[in-house]
Order: sequence, then structure tokens, then C-alpha cells
Amino acid sequence: MTILLYELVGRDEGRPFSPHCWKATMALAHKGLEMSTAPTRFLEVPAVEGGVSKTVPVIRDGDKVVTDSFAIALYLEEAYPDRPSLFGGEGGKAMARFIERWSQSTVHPYVTTAALVDLHAMQDEQNGSYFRQSREQRFGKRLEDVVAARDAGLATFRAALEPLRSMLSYQPFIGGASPLFADYIVFGALQWARIASPYKLLEDSDVVAQWFTRCLDLHGGLGRKVAAAA
Amino acid sequence: MTILLYELVGRDEGRPFSPHCWKATMALAHKGLEMSTAPTRFLEVPAVEGGVSKTVPVIRDGDKVVTDSFAIALYLEEAYPDRPSLFGGEGGKAMARFIERWSQSTVHPYVTTAALVDLHAMQDEQNGSYFRQSREQRFGKRLEDVVAARDAGLATFRAALEPLRSMLSYQPFIGGASPLFADYIVFGALQWARIASPYKLLEDSDVVAQWFTRCLDLHGGLGRKVAAAA
Repeated sequence: MTILLYELVGRDEGRPFSPHCWKATMALAHKGLEMSTAPTRFLEVPAVEGGVSKTVPVIRDGDKVVTDSFAIALYLEEAYPDRPSLFGGEGGKAMARFIERWSQSTVHPYVTTAALVDLHAMQDEQNGSYFRQSREQRFGKRLEDVVAARDAGLATFRAALEPLRSMLSYQPFIGGASPLFADYIVFGALQWARIASPYKLLEDSDVVAQWFTRCLDLHGGLGRKVAAAA
Repeated sequence: MTILLYELVGRDEGRPFSPHCWKATMALAHKGLEMSTAPTRFLEVPAVEGGVSKTVPVIRDGDKVVTDSFAIALYLEEAYPDRPSLFGGEGGKAMARFIERWSQSTVHPYVTTAALVDLHAMQDEQNGSYFRQSREQRFGKRLEDVVAARDAGLATFRAALEPLRSMLSYQPFIGGASPLFADYIVFGALQWARIASPYKLLEDSDVVAQWFTRCLDLHGGLGRKVAAAA
């Protein structure tokens, strides 16, 4: 049966950009599950599945509705145990949570800083207004003033990826010899940046960039179906 | 059979302090294996088991000698598969490497900054001279000048623990409901600080401090067998 994924889009339905939706997309592909997508704009999220969540991704799998990217991965692991594992056991399940919190506190804030104006430009007029207002309230400054800090923060951001960079001298994926959901967690954040903004986050020579390229190649090049922002 | 652990000590053989040796100690206890220890000073490390490694821990398990804390954990997992798992599966094994690299690049540099002079004070004269010379060469400054930066760096260090702090709102250990080697990795770094220096790294109210206390309680309070530095 096809699983329905509600995923965040802007003006162009063909350019889903949310890091969390990309985690879910990659998780579904990893499990080899068929999916269809329901493109969802910011202002449409509260109506998804009768208002089940303030955020997407949300999936519907038959009668079952699941919200939150990590919960979706846990659900898929339990519902489809015969498909390739997303966690590689209970230890991987627990440690993926650490990696999620690392990505959320290390990668996400800088991607936000780098791409906020570009993310705004992807929205239609109504959703753009919502985005500007809600984000400017959250940051206490104009979107343009947030992004003004990106050049100054770039070196610190790159240095903060050192745990991942160092790990890549031991193994090609966070999951080891092959990717697991933990890879998709960090991939989602960098894919969000790739799709939203032409701003160059990583040097091509960085092993983190090379790992990201390997992730783009996965599942038939699924991540490349959306071109990088130009 | 009893496993022999070569562990780093200073003047007082009863105060092993190395973070990496603590990882091995906790891993052995987790597996419920009997161990005896060979207290080893810095200058004695090159002679351990015929010069097998530039660092300790080193273990001897019958005919088998294993060096490096992570390799020791992997060895114990393979050699004693019927004992409690240190990784919780292949995914946990892979992700523990990420956590090791995170601990090494986030926790270790600051503990070094905070405790370097105290670590020096733990050594006897000969080993103290070696320690001062090798570390001052590495840092390009006097030990006292390294430690002078600790107050200024404290807030940044505490903020850098955010992934762990945030994860602890989901689960009590990095390993999930119960500890795995990944917990011992980060525990080792904070135990190193606890034994070497009275400098207060964490507020008592910090959930990271509370997790560390839970780790001290493990395996019959093994970590408390060495009193905190006063």
C-alpha cells in the first residue's frame, strides 16, 4: 500500500525543502516503501489530517497517521521489520536521538542563519507573509538582519561539524558501512540548505561534503530529484 | 579468567584518571568480567606488553592483547557475546563512533583546559616533568597559561553539551533506557575531570550532571571508588 507523506513546499510544489520532511522521505525510500506526497504550504499545515500536528512531516499509512520525523522512522521500523533497518538495533535507535539533538543544535541554527531570506523567497505571498512575521518574531529581528551574520559564522559552523568529519575517517556513513536514519537526520539539514540557498556551506574538499554527495546518490539519486538552488 | 587492564595513574596508584582507561573499566564492568589492574605511569606506557601501544588502556585477556578504548569495547563485544551488549547492535556500534568523536572534539579540549595544572600536580617528579614538557610543546604555552582560559570558556563548554542535555529529555542514557559504551565514552571524559580537578564543570541542576551521577552509580558505584578531587 502506498504511504502518503505530507511535505512542506513553497510556491513550487516540485521543491520540497523541509529538513524534517527529507528525513521522512529518505526513511520511506530506505524501507523501499511506495509513497505519494501531498504538497503542503505553511498555512495549510494546521489542516493536515484534521489538525493532528503543528508541523509536517505527517504520514498516513492506511488507517494509521504518524507525526514527527523521528516518530515516523520509529513507526516504519516497527511496522516494516522485514525491510532494511533504519536503526540497526536498539542501540542505534537510542543513539540516533543523540545525533538528532546534535544536528538540531549544531547544524540547524546555522542553516537557518544562512538560508532564511532564501527560504522566504520560496514562499508565495500569503505564506511568505506568515513566514516573515513568525520568524521575525522568533528571532527578534528582520530576516535580512539574521542572514547578515552568515559570513561571520561560516568558519564556526564548519568547525562545529568536526565530530562528523572526524568520524568519516573511520567509516563512510554515520550508520557505519551503509546509511541509517541517523545519516538522513543530518542529510535532511544540509539538503534543506542545498534546495533553499546557493550559499556555499561546505568546501568541496571537505569529507562532510563528500559524505553529503554519497547521501544524494542513495535510493536512485532521490535527493537530486530536486536541483540545488542556483 | 581475569582480564588485566593497564591503566594510567599518577603518584597515587589508587587514583586512575585517564578518560580512556575509565571507558575500558566501565566496559569491563558492564560485561561483568573480572579485572585486575596494572597501574601505569606516563613514562611506563612505552614498555607495556613489549611496547604494543603509545597509549593506555591496554588489556590482556589470556593470549590476546588489545589496545585503544574503542577497540577494547569492540573486542569485548565480540569475545563475550553472551554478556550484556556494549553497543545494542550494529547501528549502535557505528553511532558510538560518532559520539566518541563528539566527546573528543567537544568535551576533551575543555576538560584539558580546565584540569591541566591539576593533572600535572597528580604526577610524581619524573612523570610531571614529562607531562609538562610534552603538553607545553603541544599547546605552545605554559600549562598555567592554558588553564588561565578556563573561566572564560566555561559558558561555551556548557552550551556545547546541549546535544546531550537535549537528548536527556527523551531518555535517561545515551544508550536509551540503560547505558551502553556510548555513555561510558562521555562519562570517561567527565570522570577524568572529576578525579583530577575540583573545578566545577557543571551546575548541579544541569541534567547532564544528573546523568553523570547516574553513571557514577552504575556497577556498584564503580566510578565513586575514586573520590572527587578536593
